[in-house]
Amino acid sequence: MRSVVAQSSFERALEAAITRYDSTAPITAMIRYHFGYACAGPDRQGKRLRPMLLLTVAQEEGGSLEAALDAACAIEILHNYSLVHDDIEDGDRLRHGRDTVWAKWGTAHGINAGDSLCAISYLALLESDVPRPAERTVAMTRALHEANLAMCAGQGRDIAFEAETRVTMDDYVAMIAGKTAALFGAACEIGALAAGADPARARAYAQLGLAYGLGFQIEDDVLGTWGEPGTTGKPVGSDLARRKWTFPVVWALNGPPSPARDVVAGRYARRGALLPDDVTATMAALEALGVRDAATVHAQTYFDRADTIARENAIDASGRVRAFLAANVRRVV
Amino acid sequence: MRSVVAQSSFERALEAAITRYDSTAPITAMIRYHFGYACAGPDRQGKRLRPMLLLTVAQEEGGSLEAALDAACAIEILHNYSLVHDDIEDGDRLRHGRDTVWAKWGTAHGINAGDSLCAISYLALLESDVPRPAERTVAMTRALHEANLAMCAGQGRDIAFEAETRVTMDDYVAMIAGKTAALFGAACEIGALAAGADPARARAYAQLGLAYGLGFQIEDDVLGTWGEPGTTGKPVGSDLARRKWTFPVVWALNGPPSPARDVVAGRYARRGALLPDDVTATMAALEALGVRDAATVHAQTYFDRADTIARENAIDASGRVRAFLAANVRRVV
Repeated sequence: MRSVVAQSSFERALEAAITRYDSTAPITAMIRYHFGYACAGPDRQGKRLRPMLLLTVAQEEGGSLEAALDAACAIEILHNYSLVHDDIEDGDRLRHGRDTVWAKWGTAHGINAGDSLCAISYLALLESDVPRPAERTVAMTRALHEANLAMCAGQGRDIAFEAETRVTMDDYVAMIAGKTAALFGAACEIGALAAGADPARARAYAQLGLAYGLGFQIEDDVLGTWGEPGTTGKPVGSDLARRKWTFPVVWALNGPPSPARDVVAGRYARRGALLPDDVTATMAALEALGVRDAATVHAQTYFDRADTIARENAIDASGRVRAFLAANVRRVV
Repeated sequence: MRSVVAQSSFERALEAAITRYDSTAPITAMIRYHFGYACAGPDRQGKRLRPMLLLTVAQEEGGSLEAALDAACAIEILHNYSLVHDDIEDGDRLRHGRDTVWAKWGTAHGINAGDSLCAISYLALLESDVPRPAERTVAMTRALHEANLAMCAGQGRDIAFEAETRVTMDDYVAMIAGKTAALFGAACEIGALAAGADPARARAYAQLGLAYGLGFQIEDDVLGTWGEPGTTGKPVGSDLARRKWTFPVVWALNGPPSPARDVVAGRYARRGALLPDDVTATMAALEALGVRDAATVHAQTYFDRADTIARENAIDASGRVRAFLAANVRRVV
């Protein structure tokens, strides 16, 4: 549902949801700044993938745009709370070419502004004017909190990986399932609930979104290794330079012994950032090991799983949810 | 309701609520550590003021202990999420004589563990086995999120005060209303809702808790200035040493001109920590200005307001809620 109508309705609803909690407290200025309302220029908005996914599922399940806009705002605000905190945790000073909240106002305000966004996310859902049975509101709120907890668990694993010299494929999948895929799953589940789907049917949508989120992250890891910066906003090799445990590295190090694997292993045996020469050598070794093809195959198993889930549960009958995901969420096409 | 039965039932429910979300993710160990489950010894528990207040209100409103234990867990876990983040924001390395989470595991894990606790707080309420109408669950969840947002607004003001050279009494009251009193208000409101009180009646309880929370914080500010460390856990003068904008300082600086006021103003005109001699001089000046009496009078106006609220709304008829607050929450008696 990346229609102009949906997008502009969503943008209006989002600004209203945030403005509703405006006050004289200092956090108000920080939140408006983070969302780009305090400045002009393009690309202030982010891609809005999660709310548009939510609205697409709601539409597929026969719901109206209006009955799901509050939930779409909630999931986008929750995503932004996690970005504000991730920027502190990862030490990132720039986002969309602007100073991050903590870089501009300090760590204390940054943590607190993120906490505020988390509260505002749920209030956008709990205090909306959309009429719906209270049972449904509880189910939607609960799904959003479960996704939040899963994101924290995934983020905790990712932070812990920094001190590891070995990460199994199971560890990696558990990490991305929480850090990335859980919120895609919640977007699908909550979109279905907003349209009135029963809990079991909504859970099937959650599984579909989760599967796509896993495939998405594996493709994103390939982009984070080989570029292109225009798409990812990151320089080529940046994930390697930061010694991130991405799919390419985890897959290579868990494969059979080979000289190329030893090159990667040698660089990741030491904790701390990789030097430019090490990045170049590691990229060449990963390329030689055929990591790109492996990533494509692995990601495809998740996209295939999404098809199986859709078929077995008779969801996404028109295919529009998967079409949205393929067009907007998939990174390598 | 600081009975042995309530306290031990609560402790069992709390550990169960936290353990329910145990996983292999690294945050699990941090959360158990923060709550003191990973170590022996006294004073691991904190005072449990908010959950005991919630249970007292529920009892006063004719509800059972069992029907409010999930909400009592939720409010205590929410309080602890705010402590974990406050410790980072304030740079505090010790709590209850042990390293704080961020001091032990670093800032990134500290932020993330706090975020997890926030999610677990709401899930303790949303995924509990207590049977209650969904409308009531929505109202309780909403009140808890409103309190969370108010806490963030108050904390944001407190952080911003560090850079200020003037704070009005209105600014100060807005800060403590969010940072401290909102959660006391929510404890009362949610306790009443758990017992089946209608929303308007529950809101009256919220106002009572809010009034008490304001009086409590003013008394706490006096204790944070003049001691006793055995009660507060802080050294005498520690709030002054950190150049905190507490009631004594705000009241003194907003009073009529005098030599004693100039002493305080001179020390607070500069940003940054106060030296020991400045702390001693400021304490003497505040003492000379009669700040202690002023604080007692101001706090009493809030306790009187609580009585008025109780009378006008016909709540806390037995007086047990205010008796609990006076016995457990008031700092100067």
